[in-house]
Amino acid sequence: TVDGTALWTDILETARFGSTPKGGIRRLTLTEEDRQVRAWFAAACTALGCTVSHDSMGNQFARRPGRDAGLPPITMGSHLDTQPTGGKFDGIVGVLGGLAVLRALHASGFETRHPIELINWTNEEGARFAPAMLASGVFAGIFTEQEALNKTDRDGIRFGDALAAIGYRGEAPCGQHPVAAYFELHIEQGPILEAEGKTIGIVTGVQGMRWYEVTLTGRDSHAGTTPMTMRADALLAAARIIEAVSTVALAHGPDAVGTVGLMENRPNSRNVVPGAVFFSIDLRHPDDTVVSAMETDLRARIERIVAAAGIGLAMERVWDSPAVHFDPDCIASVRAATDSFGYPARDIVSGAGHDAAYLARVAPTTMIFVPCAGGLSHNEAESAAPADVAAGANVLLRAVLDADTR
Amino acid sequence: TVDGTALWTDILETARFGSTPKGGIRRLTLTEEDRQVRAWFAAACTALGCTVSHDSMGNQFARRPGRDAGLPPITMGSHLDTQPTGGKFDGIVGVLGGLAVLRALHASGFETRHPIELINWTNEEGARFAPAMLASGVFAGIFTEQEALNKTDRDGIRFGDALAAIGYRGEAPCGQHPVAAYFELHIEQGPILEAEGKTIGIVTGVQGMRWYEVTLTGRDSHAGTTPMTMRADALLAAARIIEAVSTVALAHGPDAVGTVGLMENRPNSRNVVPGAVFFSIDLRHPDDTVVSAMETDLRARIERIVAAAGIGLAMERVWDSPAVHFDPDCIASVRAATDSFGYPARDIVSGAGHDAAYLARVAPTTMIFVPCAGGLSHNEAESAAPADVAAGANVLLRAVLDADTR
Ligand SMILES: NC(=O)NCCC(=O)O
Ligand SMILES: NC(=O)NCCC(=O)O
Repeated sequence: TVDGTALWTDILETARFGSTPKGGIRRLTLTEEDRQVRAWFAAACTALGCTVSHDSMGNQFARRPGRDAGLPPITMGSHLDTQPTGGKFDGIVGVLGGLAVLRALHASGFETRHPIELINWTNEEGARFAPAMLASGVFAGIFTEQEALNKTDRDGIRFGDALAAIGYRGEAPCGQHPVAAYFELHIEQGPILEAEGKTIGIVTGVQGMRWYEVTLTGRDSHAGTTPMTMRADALLAAARIIEAVSTVALAHGPDAVGTVGLMENRPNSRNVVPGAVFFSIDLRHPDDTVVSAMETDLRARIERIVAAAGIGLAMERVWDSPAVHFDPDCIASVRAATDSFGYPARDIVSGAGHDAAYLARVAPTTMIFVPCAGGLSHNEAESAAPADVAAGANVLLRAVLDADTR
Repeated sequence: TVDGTALWTDILETARFGSTPKGGIRRLTLTEEDRQVRAWFAAACTALGCTVSHDSMGNQFARRPGRDAGLPPITMGSHLDTQPTGGKFDGIVGVLGGLAVLRALHASGFETRHPIELINWTNEEGARFAPAMLASGVFAGIFTEQEALNKTDRDGIRFGDALAAIGYRGEAPCGQHPVAAYFELHIEQGPILEAEGKTIGIVTGVQGMRWYEVTLTGRDSHAGTTPMTMRADALLAAARIIEAVSTVALAHGPDAVGTVGLMENRPNSRNVVPGAVFFSIDLRHPDDTVVSAMETDLRARIERIVAAAGIGLAMERVWDSPAVHFDPDCIASVRAATDSFGYPARDIVSGAGHDAAYLARVAPTTMIFVPCAGGLSHNEAESAAPADVAAGANVLLRAVLDADTR
């Protein structure tokens, strides 16, 4: 088993990089705070006898040699970047849980057959650079490196430039890297495990998700002199679309969700009828055909709204991550590991996207979930119990060792 | 009459301070661009033999002596600050039209009885520091100097600090300054004069206007894992309130307007259900009792919306500028001046707020409107015809001279 106390200490220790007054973390990818936690991660892995490197997308790899140097590694990983008002567990539990596995192997001197590799993926959150899971997406061949490097944040800074600025643009091309298996430990980020009193979620897949960018163009005009009937108010049209996103999600069953999370209003002055609005839409459902139906329904509503309001529309689907079904052998390894400890568990589909969703395209993959309080995530108050986190890392350890015997 | 060509040249010349690629101006109050246009203004007035000073709110005064030094000045004025995406005429026509009047008096060596004073008011737009007309409000005793100096912009910068930073925190206390009369020339910013083929609007008053600040508090949560029914989505509630503002305005007759112009969404990340939204509301009507009825109606709707959505509400009325009726003698001076030129004219009530609305509290006051293309204002495409602007300045000149004889 892993050293749960050391794991918890690592979680608290790394939480200082970008800590917020409300007890959360603001550690957007490729910022100074990200650079600091990367340096900490590299030092911690090196101290456990691993070789640490990073690739051209800034993904960090800590490798512990195995008996058979010719075999591809069994990998673990997740991410250390956070949302603008993120918590201390999302992604972090997976990386530091992997570190706890490496520590257990190191302490016992256990020799595996495969090399064991722990990965810290760049820009999983998608909060600074859309879409989410960008660097694992390049690793898996979903995006080209060039398109990823050219993504810009909302201030117009290029991913490639931000990566170089923190010193993490590595020479090794991202992705030319065979992987025997990938296991990702993560908090559930939803309410199910806690509600049912389960310690472990055996993750069978990830739901489908799509992101859209919408720009509405109306006409800036004076709030005091422009009659209501002569306005082209882009924000009023955006308000109707926000309502439509909610309506569409509610209409497609309890598993459908739809969210407008990012919105920019222009010129954003109290006495100017807004002439332009930019916003994002996020649609998800475990069944891709339902996601498609939601999109069709929503597009029709949006077109009616902008036509009636005399507003110009540009709408683009900027991300499509179809539903993923994880590898049966990896799932079996997680199930066996969970059973060996006797942890209460259930199968679960992930509502959140994870790097595992892209790794699943190129390697046998699965995930392990542990509960988080109230199912709350992407919130500074996000929390998880030390015993659950340790249990998750124990399952990760035994699942990796099980896969090593295959 | 004034030199219309010189006036037009001044408009084009000052438009370089903060000029935008789309032909507008971005010259927010107390910025470097504002400092530049202030320096230009002071130099231009000094060249016409005026004494230029500024008070503790940064209001600039250019004084041309009269025959009787004991008399209070007859004043003209408006503002040189703009919206973030403003035009070349809003406010500017009033200040530079006043400069054209000073130039005409200077060129002819005409001696008035009263001193004549041209004023450039600080922060008329309210775009950077709310509310609008802040410095003329202090001048008129509506706001205390301390409360004005402590206003902050959306980046938290204090008005007083921004004022000191551009070097315009004068020693003379704002407001201890008797005024014989105040005339403000302005573009209409609405569609009426143009539609009716009138050159001059004889402004009889300003409609009532109120500003509110609303903060909605929900709960940040994960866009992929939080079921629709478990969300506390502050942006969705804000969307419903934006719709309600429009509904309330439409329900109170063709003269009622309601606008949400400023909105800030938090944490503003694509995959986070928004936990907090801040926005402004602007309600206006020529009749204060209707403004009150609109407020009552809107508050009831907002309370229903937030209660149903489980969202926390903080709503504050941050500005109340009641309807203003201008001085009959000043209006008579403008009417006589307009008739003397034979300009087509009509009486009009201003839909926009103006420094004149506050000056009217402490001095006989009125305004002169000229048409603007399509009634468009608070827009980079705002435009006015050189002949109309010159006509407005001619009326300003004769109205001032008429008041000087009273
Ligand atoms: N795990 C996680 O929160 N990932 C962000 C990608 C998503 O939006 O689901
Ligand atoms: N004239 C003008 O646009 N003033 C700004 C104040 C208002 O919102 O009406």
